[in-house]
Amino acid sequence: MTVTALSGVDSGHNAVRSALHRAVTQLDDTIRPVVAYHLGWCDEHGNPVSANGGKSIRSRLALLAAAAAGGDEACAVPGAVAVELVHNFSLVHDDLMDRDATRRHRPTVWAVWGDAIAILAGDAMLSLAHEVLLDSGSPHAVSAARVVGAATRDLIYGQSADVGFEHRDDVGLDECVRMAENKTAALLAASVVVGGVLAAAPPATVTALGCYGRNIGLAFQLVDDLLGIWGRPEVTGKPVFSDLRSRKKTLPVTWTVRAGGDTGRELARLLTGPGEPTDDELQAAADLIESGGGRQWARAEARRRVHAAERALDSVPLCAEPHRELADLANFIIERSA
Amino acid sequence: MTVTALSGVDSGHNAVRSALHRAVTQLDDTIRPVVAYHLGWCDEHGNPVSANGGKSIRSRLALLAAAAAGGDEACAVPGAVAVELVHNFSLVHDDLMDRDATRRHRPTVWAVWGDAIAILAGDAMLSLAHEVLLDSGSPHAVSAARVVGAATRDLIYGQSADVGFEHRDDVGLDECVRMAENKTAALLAASVVVGGVLAAAPPATVTALGCYGRNIGLAFQLVDDLLGIWGRPEVTGKPVFSDLRSRKKTLPVTWTVRAGGDTGRELARLLTGPGEPTDDELQAAADLIESGGGRQWARAEARRRVHAAERALDSVPLCAEPHRELADLANFIIERSA
Repeated sequence: MTVTALSGVDSGHNAVRSALHRAVTQLDDTIRPVVAYHLGWCDEHGNPVSANGGKSIRSRLALLAAAAAGGDEACAVPGAVAVELVHNFSLVHDDLMDRDATRRHRPTVWAVWGDAIAILAGDAMLSLAHEVLLDSGSPHAVSAARVVGAATRDLIYGQSADVGFEHRDDVGLDECVRMAENKTAALLAASVVVGGVLAAAPPATVTALGCYGRNIGLAFQLVDDLLGIWGRPEVTGKPVFSDLRSRKKTLPVTWTVRAGGDTGRELARLLTGPGEPTDDELQAAADLIESGGGRQWARAEARRRVHAAERALDSVPLCAEPHRELADLANFIIERSA
Repeated sequence: MTVTALSGVDSGHNAVRSALHRAVTQLDDTIRPVVAYHLGWCDEHGNPVSANGGKSIRSRLALLAAAAAGGDEACAVPGAVAVELVHNFSLVHDDLMDRDATRRHRPTVWAVWGDAIAILAGDAMLSLAHEVLLDSGSPHAVSAARVVGAATRDLIYGQSADVGFEHRDDVGLDECVRMAENKTAALLAASVVVGGVLAAAPPATVTALGCYGRNIGLAFQLVDDLLGIWGRPEVTGKPVFSDLRSRKKTLPVTWTVRAGGDTGRELARLLTGPGEPTDDELQAAADLIESGGGRQWARAEARRRVHAAERALDSVPLCAEPHRELADLANFIIERSA
């Protein structure tokens, strides 16, 4: 999802980009080019590129939330930078943990520079996220940093559960949803909440923004899971069936397995057998998720979450234009569904 | 170095231990036992042990600095917990990056649980360090968190330089000292400074405490480098010659190589040859560092740094008893010298 798909000239987005550049400039000579590469600003030799730098949905949410709460988008810029840094810290470390060699159509950081530099680049971005918020001078810096810190903890728990699930064949739908809430929804919710907090929004507004963020977060993960199975690699930037190949207990997989019956058992068998699944087995697994109802469930659940997010926004007074943009963003998530 | 070597009954140390326990309790079911193991509280199956939990020098420094500045040790407890967590985050990630399989006479986290869990456990401790400070309710939480954040950045730079040095044979003494200042001295200095900041010490006192911390930090690294060559494995908890084996550009090594002459050239040859050095070559390298003057230089430089640290303490008014303990701690560092 690109921000330009949602709005035209965007001074807030440019302010975030500038602030992110300034923050990354503080990194040392070894780590800075690695982070700049990961963010899509340059190639692995440091030459500037105009590559796809990934989704800026988290910073966009922070700015829109501040504006929706009646604040100036500018006050949310440090929060926007911090959530982008935390998100990218987690991507660099997750790619290493999952041994994913490709992201956004390019080799991942560990694949180019090795494990040690990938660990350090992630560490540096996490640390920098806190520095950006605390150096901001905002009177709400501590509250904002606590929001980002709690979401980072949830995100780490989510990834830890995700890693643990790969060695288990008894994962329930509830714990799988909780994993997705931690791994994806917590930071998306924090992105919205941090915007509200930095704009000094009243508690009820912050609560409603958080509810919106958690719901679109889960919708986002459901759609990501669907794209991980049926998305075209040239669009997703990831190899086909990459999640199935690494036996990830994604939401549509877990739903289908737990629904039981011959389909669920056959899917479980395909994804727990010895050795790496063949391409034919992966295609068969995808077909079982479709025929077993997992694909349809995930689409319906994503829609349900988006509607809940819209209702949360409607429950408090918000400025009209950013309110509409937040609602559009929620709907954009399910429109890209596979 | 154990705290009990320096003082008897220590309520501050117990307060830090309790607060650290409370913080670690917040971690999720997968990560918590890993962190508890790393901190020496339990074995890898979760059974409590009374093992050597490592040095508590950083938390001790934070408490002493607060007391020296005339504050209550209790106000420095969140800072003490934060610097211990940052230190242990870096140990878990460094062990993985360096592929060190033993620490404190036990297998390291990655050696027990694998790479992914080691990455996540480190990430969780770094994130928790910030949460502990920001949740403390201290009016100086933001300043303290900025001190810890800046030191974390330095620490990451130091480790990134250390990793980079392994592939270079032209490392100068200046950049080697800078690496040690970032990797070791920055967090030791931050430990002292954070104590002063949380105790609302005047700026001149904070500056003097930082100067003390940086100097004992470099002395500490020099002594660690000496112990890494001549320390007995049963005392250090690390395999004999481990730093030399991994071709680390430690301070005594770099000094000897840069001093040149036949000794420096022979040492450089031994540590840059193809394949892993044999035990005979490692013994020969250690002998060259001795005969070339690197061992003597490191001892003298450590003493010089400890004296500079003492002078920094003498430059501002401090409470007598904690002042004396800080000075004792500085001298204790060189007494354990190999």
